[in-house]
Amino acid sequence: MTRSRGKVEVATRVALDGPDDLAEHYTPGVADQARRVADDPSVLARETVKANSVAIVSDGSALLGLGDQGPAAALPVMEGKAALLKRFADVDAWPICPVSREPDDLVRTVKDLATSFGAINLEDIAAPRCFTVERRLHDELDIPVFHDDQHGTAVVVLAALHNALKLTGREPEGTSVVIAGAGAAGSAIARLLLRAGYRSEGLVVCDSEGVLHEGRDLVGEKHWLAENTNSGGVTGSVRDAVREADVFIGVSAGGLLDPGDVATMADRAIVFALANPDPEVDPEAAREHAEVVATGRSDFPNQINNVLAFPGMFRGLLDSGAPRVTAPMLLAAAHALADVVGEDADAGHIVPSVFDEELVPSVAEAVAGAAKAAG
Amino acid sequence: MTRSRGKVEVATRVALDGPDDLAEHYTPGVADQARRVADDPSVLARETVKANSVAIVSDGSALLGLGDQGPAAALPVMEGKAALLKRFADVDAWPICPVSREPDDLVRTVKDLATSFGAINLEDIAAPRCFTVERRLHDELDIPVFHDDQHGTAVVVLAALHNALKLTGREPEGTSVVIAGAGAAGSAIARLLLRAGYRSEGLVVCDSEGVLHEGRDLVGEKHWLAENTNSGGVTGSVRDAVREADVFIGVSAGGLLDPGDVATMADRAIVFALANPDPEVDPEAAREHAEVVATGRSDFPNQINNVLAFPGMFRGLLDSGAPRVTAPMLLAAAHALADVVGEDADAGHIVPSVFDEELVPSVAEAVAGAAKAAG
Repeated sequence: MTRSRGKVEVATRVALDGPDDLAEHYTPGVADQARRVADDPSVLARETVKANSVAIVSDGSALLGLGDQGPAAALPVMEGKAALLKRFADVDAWPICPVSREPDDLVRTVKDLATSFGAINLEDIAAPRCFTVERRLHDELDIPVFHDDQHGTAVVVLAALHNALKLTGREPEGTSVVIAGAGAAGSAIARLLLRAGYRSEGLVVCDSEGVLHEGRDLVGEKHWLAENTNSGGVTGSVRDAVREADVFIGVSAGGLLDPGDVATMADRAIVFALANPDPEVDPEAAREHAEVVATGRSDFPNQINNVLAFPGMFRGLLDSGAPRVTAPMLLAAAHALADVVGEDADAGHIVPSVFDEELVPSVAEAVAGAAKAAG
Repeated sequence: MTRSRGKVEVATRVALDGPDDLAEHYTPGVADQARRVADDPSVLARETVKANSVAIVSDGSALLGLGDQGPAAALPVMEGKAALLKRFADVDAWPICPVSREPDDLVRTVKDLATSFGAINLEDIAAPRCFTVERRLHDELDIPVFHDDQHGTAVVVLAALHNALKLTGREPEGTSVVIAGAGAAGSAIARLLLRAGYRSEGLVVCDSEGVLHEGRDLVGEKHWLAENTNSGGVTGSVRDAVREADVFIGVSAGGLLDPGDVATMADRAIVFALANPDPEVDPEAAREHAEVVATGRSDFPNQINNVLAFPGMFRGLLDSGAPRVTAPMLLAAAHALADVVGEDADAGHIVPSVFDEELVPSVAEAVAGAAKAAG
């Protein structure tokens, strides 16, 4: 019988080789530590696992591109993520895959985890529930809560777009962007682009019914997007929307566009077709009509993958002791990520390799810097 | 600023040194693993962290001998326990210290943890809430739940008593035992002694009001104890009860008895004064009147400490894949623990050292054997 025991394990950080070690690190020594914490709970974040740990929380309701697979199927994915956090950022993460589905129950469970973790990584939780859960935890916890499918994706997309705009001689203000997908990723990308100086009139978000606009009957996050993007009142399908657009960002489903649709875009177009495993448009065909093409896949140039952001993000959050994630942190992370490529950028290299040793320290420092600037 | 980061950390068990490693252990490789688990959830217990992991859950409501200190104060204690589980039994444990106090909420949180852990260690949760929480989780989960303050203590006490009885020429059936303390530990000790062949008429449990008997107005666990112990109908104080008794087991509070009380016990008396840090009776003075004296302290002979049981217990539970903890497992663990001392037992050596390399494998094998015997 295979007993692989998974991708991470626990290791001791103290010697336990004789009675004196036991007396120090277990009874009676821990009684003193417990009393010190009872007197001053801030000791936790300096002297216990809380100083360096992250709970990776997923109910498996929007797992990878597979849809609702439940919490058990999420476990091998989340422990893989825990392995990445250790390997790239020396963060101690453990996967937690709740059976609870109600936002109230998920919030309660995560609050029960918060004592022994320094930060929370929400992952692969279906929209719109993920927005409610993240917002409540952001308000109710005193440790940072980071929904990677939203903000990790948004940070990497913004960084990649920053370099793609430089290569094609554009500025955010004058650039028109179409986002296909109005779930966790699409929504967070739109919000971060607005923060980064992209204009509402140049930003159009589409769901499976077409362009989000104020004439549609929308609620929640989509309602917010319709009110805060597309101020020009564009209507119609995603195909209609990409005509003459400078940038297409797909976080939706494979085969959404034909190469011919890319041909209708502006000159020197930028196409991020990020659906996995099948991109929104065939990347090689798109390359005939667009100057910069990126995907979510490792077998094409310009892989847009969250692993470029989340290790440095959590390293910076833990190093700074920030109580929450803020928009300035996300912007700083994106700029730091883009700057790792810097002058080396070309159409096939708008993001760095995750194995670039500069990457995690740069992102971490930027995040910690933004945390300190906020006080 | 001290940043000790605590007593345990996470370590990777897979190489992540290049794109191929990432493809295998993260995207797209994990998608296949997720699909396999979705088809057959039993894969989890063989191929993920669930195979070897334990959540150590404490709300800090009965922390060590310190009383209710809350979840934050519990964290340094529970991470110390996690370090012991790794060091002595190669078990991957992580501390979880919920803020929830209602049994319903604690049960829900632990059920939300159960996907990514192979067993649950409840710890330092106040009685009588601990009984409700443990019983519900025992019934509602398909992984073993072990409340160490109850069953770990009971296993070590039974093992020590087994050797003490041999030394003093007694058999369980004819031995009279007084237990001082009717909380988690006292109750579990009484239940396990009854399972091990000690007779109801010879077993008296006392709380802070004196002997538990059917004439008292008791509810819950104490009511059960009054009905199932003390069939002779003894009444009065703990001092009254120890007169002529063969064995005293204190899991209550320091200074409960005088050495003179020990003098009223039977010849070749056995005294386990386990309150920490101050035993129920001064162990050196007790030794003048009793043949075998044990405490919870490392600075006297015969230290009765749960660390003798729980590492082997969890190793055996995880190795066997047992869905729950059973009384035969506890009895098997106690006998295995006693047998590690075996013929080497003397009045100052009724339990082994935790550093005895035979200890954990012996207990683990006994527990796994009992699991297999039960099918």
